[in-house]
Amino acid sequence: MQGGGCGAFAAVALNLMNRTGTADYAVTGTWSSKAAKEAAKYGKVNLVFPKADKPGSIPDQKTWSMDPNASYVYYCDNETVDGVEFPYIPETNGIPLVSDMSSSIMTKKVDVSKFGIIFGGAQKNIGPAGVVVVIIREDLLGNAMKVCPSVFDFTHIIKENSIHNTPATFSVYVMEKVLQWIKKSGGVDAMQKQSEEKERLLYGTIKQSNSFYHCPIDERVRSRINIPFRVGGKNGNESLEAKFLEEAEKLKMYQLKGHRSVGGIRASLYNAVTLEDVQSLVKFMIEFQKQHSTTHN
Amino acid sequence: MQGGGCGAFAAVALNLMNRTGTADYAVTGTWSSKAAKEAAKYGKVNLVFPKADKPGSIPDQKTWSMDPNASYVYYCDNETVDGVEFPYIPETNGIPLVSDMSSSIMTKKVDVSKFGIIFGGAQKNIGPAGVVVVIIREDLLGNAMKVCPSVFDFTHIIKENSIHNTPATFSVYVMEKVLQWIKKSGGVDAMQKQSEEKERLLYGTIKQSNSFYHCPIDERVRSRINIPFRVGGKNGNESLEAKFLEEAEKLKMYQLKGHRSVGGIRASLYNAVTLEDVQSLVKFMIEFQKQHSTTHN
Repeated sequence: MQGGGCGAFAAVALNLMNRTGTADYAVTGTWSSKAAKEAAKYGKVNLVFPKADKPGSIPDQKTWSMDPNASYVYYCDNETVDGVEFPYIPETNGIPLVSDMSSSIMTKKVDVSKFGIIFGGAQKNIGPAGVVVVIIREDLLGNAMKVCPSVFDFTHIIKENSIHNTPATFSVYVMEKVLQWIKKSGGVDAMQKQSEEKERLLYGTIKQSNSFYHCPIDERVRSRINIPFRVGGKNGNESLEAKFLEEAEKLKMYQLKGHRSVGGIRASLYNAVTLEDVQSLVKFMIEFQKQHSTTHN
Repeated sequence: MQGGGCGAFAAVALNLMNRTGTADYAVTGTWSSKAAKEAAKYGKVNLVFPKADKPGSIPDQKTWSMDPNASYVYYCDNETVDGVEFPYIPETNGIPLVSDMSSSIMTKKVDVSKFGIIFGGAQKNIGPAGVVVVIIREDLLGNAMKVCPSVFDFTHIIKENSIHNTPATFSVYVMEKVLQWIKKSGGVDAMQKQSEEKERLLYGTIKQSNSFYHCPIDERVRSRINIPFRVGGKNGNESLEAKFLEEAEKLKMYQLKGHRSVGGIRASLYNAVTLEDVQSLVKFMIEFQKQHSTTHN
């Protein structure tokens, strides 16, 4: 479908909320929070745990307060801004499970049969911005709300073979190239293996830095894909972080700045980032620490 | 905004219908018909004249049955499938006027001050598919329906500087190139002059063909941009039309087939089609007629 990942936030509710008028949301960061807010336009949203002031963990599923009457249970598999990733697939006792996999799709194997809907904006691991991939269980079709715009109506989109109107054709074209590239590179298995090697290397470097680098995220739910960390101690040293970014750019390592809402550094290890790229990053990090740790740590 | 032109059909109603709950629609073909159907999800739609069985004309505005209570008056400036274009801007007695200019934008000068909303899918005259340009009068903002998805809420989009979420970045990039190209080529004035020369040449050739070529559209509302015609007489000769398309393709003239709902031939003279291109087309048409008129006319 079109309309970007944020369009899908509304589309999910517009297609599924009709069953009972309520839905369960697990809010673990920026994107699931936006999705819950959007869904509240179309029905009652139950947060299965209170929204944390400072994301960085995911409460144990045993503690979730789930509504047995929910139309669906929603979670964001990986929060790009906050660096939190689900290490498991939530149990829902038969209620359709919806997952925003915009940033994790094609980085790991997933048992698709466990989901009602999986969706993902293409622009992280599949291709350029402008397309959203939606996988929906067939029995969930045919129940969109009356106010659902046709371009967001999954039943209608499937009927029209995904070309209800002209999609972002160039984005679709490149997406095909990227999917072929994944296949040629060994498929999702190879992407997952590479992802694990990359995160092990980066988190390992952070751990061995003796708190010069610090990742604030609960170890059990750390993202393999978006890794936020501070430089110069637990609370970060902003001038040192500015220097870190400046020197990284000299080495052609861009976009390492953390989202403005959380600050610090963020390394995004999407499929297009190679193990060699991460090796270059950690080499730089070790060097940078050598130069600055005596004065700042 | 995103979601394609068809997304804008819903977005217009979702942003404007709230004022009175009703809207006037002038249905002159495929696209305005779809827009009216979409708007009916969000309020009462009044057709200002009955939908024609076979589009091809626009009733005189004096005969329109307009609702003085309408939230807005909607029309499609140019119907790409049906070959009908408004030769004037409708009068609305102060009610906001909404125009789908997807296929005519940047092909002629328009007094923007007369409109409440002008929108256009980029993929005809502005750039690749994936972006919709929306021009909205400021006083119409701030009144979206509660069920309006954020990605369709013009007030929200403006507040977020058109990057509420990641747009189809490549399409936006190319759009800037196309707009620079229009500027360099003499601006909208030059595009309009070229458009007039192109349509005069093609309609002239049809007229001089002594009904070998036939355009079924009322002369007063013929599109300058999408010109449908039949080959081999008033009702068309399908085998001759197949041959016409086949020979045209040999000369590298593609996409001349009429929309499946109307048949025949359709020449789309968007800004990227030059006067020379149309000269090649009419040269071929004259040749083709010479070869086939004795047997078929």
